[in-house]
Amino acid sequence: MKEFQLIRQIQQETSIDAITGFDTGVKLGIGDDAAVLELAAGQDLVAATDTLNAGVHFPLDTEPYDIGYKCLAVNLSDMAAMGAKPRWALLSLSLPEASAEWVQSFAAGFKSLASTHKVSLVGGDTTSGPLSISLTALGVIEQGAQLTRAGASPGDLIVVSGTIGGAARVLDLLRAGGSVEEQHLLDRPQPRVDLGQALAGYASACIDISDGLLADIGHLLTASGCAARLEVAAMPHARVLDGLEDEVRWGYQLSGGDDYELLFTLPRSHEGMMAGWIQSTGINLSIIGEVESGEGVRCICPDESVFDPRGSGFEHFSQSP
Amino acid sequence: MKEFQLIRQIQQETSIDAITGFDTGVKLGIGDDAAVLELAAGQDLVAATDTLNAGVHFPLDTEPYDIGYKCLAVNLSDMAAMGAKPRWALLSLSLPEASAEWVQSFAAGFKSLASTHKVSLVGGDTTSGPLSISLTALGVIEQGAQLTRAGASPGDLIVVSGTIGGAARVLDLLRAGGSVEEQHLLDRPQPRVDLGQALAGYASACIDISDGLLADIGHLLTASGCAARLEVAAMPHARVLDGLEDEVRWGYQLSGGDDYELLFTLPRSHEGMMAGWIQSTGINLSIIGEVESGEGVRCICPDESVFDPRGSGFEHFSQSP
Repeated sequence: MKEFQLIRQIQQETSIDAITGFDTGVKLGIGDDAAVLELAAGQDLVAATDTLNAGVHFPLDTEPYDIGYKCLAVNLSDMAAMGAKPRWALLSLSLPEASAEWVQSFAAGFKSLASTHKVSLVGGDTTSGPLSISLTALGVIEQGAQLTRAGASPGDLIVVSGTIGGAARVLDLLRAGGSVEEQHLLDRPQPRVDLGQALAGYASACIDISDGLLADIGHLLTASGCAARLEVAAMPHARVLDGLEDEVRWGYQLSGGDDYELLFTLPRSHEGMMAGWIQSTGINLSIIGEVESGEGVRCICPDESVFDPRGSGFEHFSQSP
Repeated sequence: MKEFQLIRQIQQETSIDAITGFDTGVKLGIGDDAAVLELAAGQDLVAATDTLNAGVHFPLDTEPYDIGYKCLAVNLSDMAAMGAKPRWALLSLSLPEASAEWVQSFAAGFKSLASTHKVSLVGGDTTSGPLSISLTALGVIEQGAQLTRAGASPGDLIVVSGTIGGAARVLDLLRAGGSVEEQHLLDRPQPRVDLGQALAGYASACIDISDGLLADIGHLLTASGCAARLEVAAMPHARVLDGLEDEVRWGYQLSGGDDYELLFTLPRSHEGMMAGWIQSTGINLSIIGEVESGEGVRCICPDESVFDPRGSGFEHFSQSP
């Protein structure tokens, strides 16, 4: 298959043009040297890139559908963490060989999520090389409305969406050779796009949990110049973590990555908003701690003792694949 | 080296913040989940992505400085081909190992070109994996002013900037084991950013020559629904092609890629603008043919016979590295 065939296939099989009555904002999409995208006055552009490499970010035998889904999901999760509305994506796809079947499945996974969030694929690049997917997401936000990692203040509540630790547990169970009912926690993370937009203007800081709760809250606290107290027993967990000893479960929840839930800090004056967000998004929200002055994170057990987790999240260059 | 160190190093060593009095338009750059970029009303966003894989797009022993330079150059060339003003870039960098020396050299090459064109690196991703660089360039353009591949009409002049065929000739000479004086033609292509912006509003269609003149003019003609007559003896060539037989030189010029010159079509009514563009940009422009009605490209020799080149440009999936 030649490159232009590959590009045309990707274009056709990811198109969301058929969504009736939706203005994609795409003035010029795939097929020229670059895309041209409409922006309204008073809006800012939000841009993020994430790369997934075979054997590093997903097992070599991962279904192309799941790869297509997940490469978009992780970028939409970045959009969510900023409070932005995702609009467009650019895809760089390196493939060992040009397989129409592979691309078809990949595109189907991509489109399943792109349709949900009305994200248009507007350009990119296909090359020959080891399997690697690099996606750039572009979103818009009202001027000045972005949620950032900075902005948390002592006394703010620490809130997390959904459940955490499930993706890491699923990965361990799969590696041990088992089949797992909740494999979707690893393969089909739900980027919290609607929640992110709802939080804009209320949350004082926000980040998505990709590297692990402790690692990611560490980024947020460093940017905000604060410390945190976490109540480990308050961390919400998926059923796949049921039955584990407390310490083991807390380890998954604090150090496991790939959950793509939002972790945000909320001034207590806005605590009353939470019930409305839960209702409007259908996503559970849990208060798991409080921002404090100082540095670092204290993980507190129900008996008030300090829990010391083994790792501090996934570091791409300090672990082997 | 840990990921955050790698990111910080890239951030520090590519920063153009020190350029006095220049407003980068970056509201939020590297270090959060996404970048926030300012856009003025009445402007459109232009976005392009290109990936360079080791062993495919550059030899394994290429200097990191040259890789840093070229990954930006090929994307700025896409911006140029649209007539856009490049503003920002996002970088996805896959490295087999995190080497501070490698990143330092890479960043220096990137910055040498980023400074020239005042492009800010505003985000990205570093991962462990086979050496691969994926860059997204974002630019702005006055609403509706983009140059596209479509728009050429019969009778328009076909114009090319600089010289063509040089990069492919250099690559062949290097592969044969020689040293080449004009290696910069391959390693340091000059994206024609100023020329692209000057052409906006005048050229009827435009593309950059990355895959080879014949392949790229083919894309332009397909998008425009036209044919072309090329005068092969009118094609400008670099000194590295001096002394070759006409047919061999024409082969390099028609089928060699990696020149990153602009090829555009110009209504004859604007022919008088060319001298001014040459003067303002310092880039030579050569009329090499004419757009015709119909389909396909005829390459005409000085004796009016038709020249039949062997290849039709570089196809990533039809050639081995």
